[in-house]
Order: sequence, then C-alpha cells, then structure tokens
Amino acid sequence: MWPGLEALPWRWAGGAALGLGLALEALALLLRGWWRRRRRAPRREVLFFPSPVTCTAALLGGPGPAPCLCPLPHGDSPLARLLRRLLSARRSLELCLFAFSSPQLGRAVQLLHRRGVRVRLVTDSDYMVLTGSQMGSPHFAGIQVRHDQESGYMHHKFAIVDKKMLITGSLNWTTQAIQNNRENVLIVEDAEYVEPFLAEFERIWEEYNPANYTFFPTEKEQK
Amino acid sequence: MWPGLEALPWRWAGGAALGLGLALEALALLLRGWWRRRRRAPRREVLFFPSPVTCTAALLGGPGPAPCLCPLPHGDSPLARLLRRLLSARRSLELCLFAFSSPQLGRAVQLLHRRGVRVRLVTDSDYMVLTGSQMGSPHFAGIQVRHDQESGYMHHKFAIVDKKMLITGSLNWTTQAIQNNRENVLIVEDAEYVEPFLAEFERIWEEYNPANYTFFPTEKEQK
Repeated sequence: MWPGLEALPWRWAGGAALGLGLALEALALLLRGWWRRRRRAPRREVLFFPSPVTCTAALLGGPGPAPCLCPLPHGDSPLARLLRRLLSARRSLELCLFAFSSPQLGRAVQLLHRRGVRVRLVTDSDYMVLTGSQMGSPHFAGIQVRHDQESGYMHHKFAIVDKKMLITGSLNWTTQAIQNNRENVLIVEDAEYVEPFLAEFERIWEEYNPANYTFFPTEKEQK
Repeated sequence: MWPGLEALPWRWAGGAALGLGLALEALALLLRGWWRRRRRAPRREVLFFPSPVTCTAALLGGPGPAPCLCPLPHGDSPLARLLRRLLSARRSLELCLFAFSSPQLGRAVQLLHRRGVRVRLVTDSDYMVLTGSQMGSPHFAGIQVRHDQESGYMHHKFAIVDKKMLITGSLNWTTQAIQNNRENVLIVEDAEYVEPFLAEFERIWEEYNPANYTFFPTEKEQK
C-alpha cells in the first residue's frame, strides 16, 4: 500500500498544487496591502477654535531662515494647522468666504498666488467693503474676486485645495473668530463632500460673473 | 512510469489540498462581502441652501392623516431633508447653536423632546434673548438649555443625533438663513468627525454649567 517510485509524479503534482495555491494567496495579500498603502486613507480632521495666539512667521515666510525671536509661543495651534493645510496647495485654491479679514490667512492666500497657484475668491458684497477686508489689500491685486448681487448673504466659509481637499465649518476668516469665538473647521478629502462643494463653487462663480450683471431691468422684467 | 494503484492516495491528497485551498478562498470572499454589507457605509450627504419654501406639515405632524391642502409645494427640499435627519433621533440630540429661531426646526426639536429623546441645547447668550428665539417659546419648557458667559461668540451650528450622526455647517437655524442665504450643511457619520464634536459638546456643556458660574471675583482674582 505504500507508494512506490511510480507514485512520485502524483506526489509532486499534489505538492505543487498546494504550493501554488499558497503562493497565489500570499501574492494576493501582498498586492492588497500595496494597493491599500497606495490609496492613502482620506484625511479627516477637525479643528476647534478659539486658537491660542502663536507665531506663524515660519509658516508665512518670515524675514529669513533664522528662527523667529518674537515673544509669542512658537508651538502648534488650530490656526497654524489651518495655515499648513491651505499652504499645501500646488495648483488651485477656490475660496468662498462670507468674511475675510484675518491678516495671517490673507498672507497665506497672497503667498499661494505668488507661487503660481490659481486662486479664485467669492465673497459677500456687504462684507467686502468693510474696514480690514483682505480684498482691499493691494497685495490682492491679480487675484480673481467675485461677489454676490443678492439680498441674502453669501454665508459659506469654505476653501478647496487642489480640487481634492475641502476646508469648511463655522469659522469666518477674521481675527475675532479665530481668537475669541467657539468655532469648528473640518478638513475633508472624501469625494462625497469635495465634489458637491466644487460644483457649488463653479455654480456661484458663474452666477456672479460680472458679464452676467443686469444693471437695468430687461423689457420683460419692466412689464 | 505511469501511476499504479499505489499512487491513488497521493492523487487524492493533491486534489484534496487544491480543493480545500479553493474552498477556503471562496469562503473568505463570501465572509468579506457579508461583513461589508453588514457594516453599512457611513452616511455622507451635503445640503445647500437657500431652500425653496415647501410644506413641512407631513414631517412635523400636521392636523391629521389627511394630506395637507395648503398652497405651498409639497415636494422635497434641503430643509425637509434636514428635518428628516433630525427627526430620525431615537435616544439623544445634542444641539450647539449660535442662533435658533426657525419655527420648523424649533417644532422638530419639541417633537423629539415629547417623544422622550434627551435633548440638550447650548446657545450664545447674546442671541438667545432676541425676538423670535425658540428658547423663549413656552414649548421649550423641559428642554435643558445652557449658554455661554464669554465675550466671544458661541458660533458653532451643529447637532448630534443618537451620538452617531453629526449635522454641521454654515447654516444658522433661522428662517433668514434657510430661505435667503447661500449656506451649507454636512451630514456625517464618520467617527473621525462625530467623536471630536461630541467631546467638544460635553466640554462646553460642563463649562457652561450654571453651578460653575462665578458672579463675584474670587479672592485670587481680586488680587
């Protein structure tokens, strides 16, 4: 009953089949791990404010490579993390902001514009003429800005970085909100959120196109 | 060289190993599919406002089972979807709202309270005394409300349903915002967002506990 020499090929075939099965299984596991690592999990982050006041010179291009000697703390803060996310933009930045007067956030947007990132900004017409609005800064020259023409507020407060990261929440981009208010900001990369916000931006951008303004009622509206 | 009878057990062993490998692989695939179906994908939804005015009587418990005959459209709307998400609460509802004067949203919260859902509401002290605030409604009797004691605003606008669904965005819970403004609301079930917001709520709830009020400076503060 014990196998003789004649049995050897079958022995090999059985062993080979088992070995091949195991090798395929191992290969599948390896490929799955590689694919998962390649498709980095989407970033999901929450920032709460008020933010302690910290020095942001290192992030916003201080006077030089020497460490900043100002008396402010130089640690991390919600504002510093928000600035870092914004400054990660390489190609495009869409901004839809009810209020925009924070000098640090204004400086970050100017930096991105100077680096060649395509910046487009939509804002509320009531707010943009207020003192301190970043839209009044000469450094904003060259940045495309459009504003609403409606009686309601353009109350969004969101940014989209490189068409793949959404930054949105309750925070108006003002020093008052950053330093004094209870506020939240979500950093989101899930397409289920990023895509509708991108579509909303494009819809508003087109609607607020000055070429579409009607300063005088049309014949139809007059009737 | 061809196998004789002696080879049969090895033949079987080889076939059995291959069969077992394939069966295990198939079982693993089936189990993975079942597990994925069991863990429903987290809800990810965006609502944009302004919302067209629609009848919400059917959602908010109208006068009876008869269809509402009011002249408003009876279709879907961002407000109706927001109400449906809120009204899905079965156990708890945490509310952290800068402004809360929308009669429809107020009615939804009262309904949940009457159904035995534990409602806790944090708001901004400046806003809660304004005309139209839902906090002034006698129907809010029995709902736990706390408010800030700070110079900055409690500017959050979020709700947490049954400790697992976060509703947050730019929308203040006012008719002006719902009907006239450009606003956004995110519906979120990912734990990476829900858990920090729950922790923020509990932090604020404890901080605004009237038992912790200090109406007179302590000895230490007087020095």
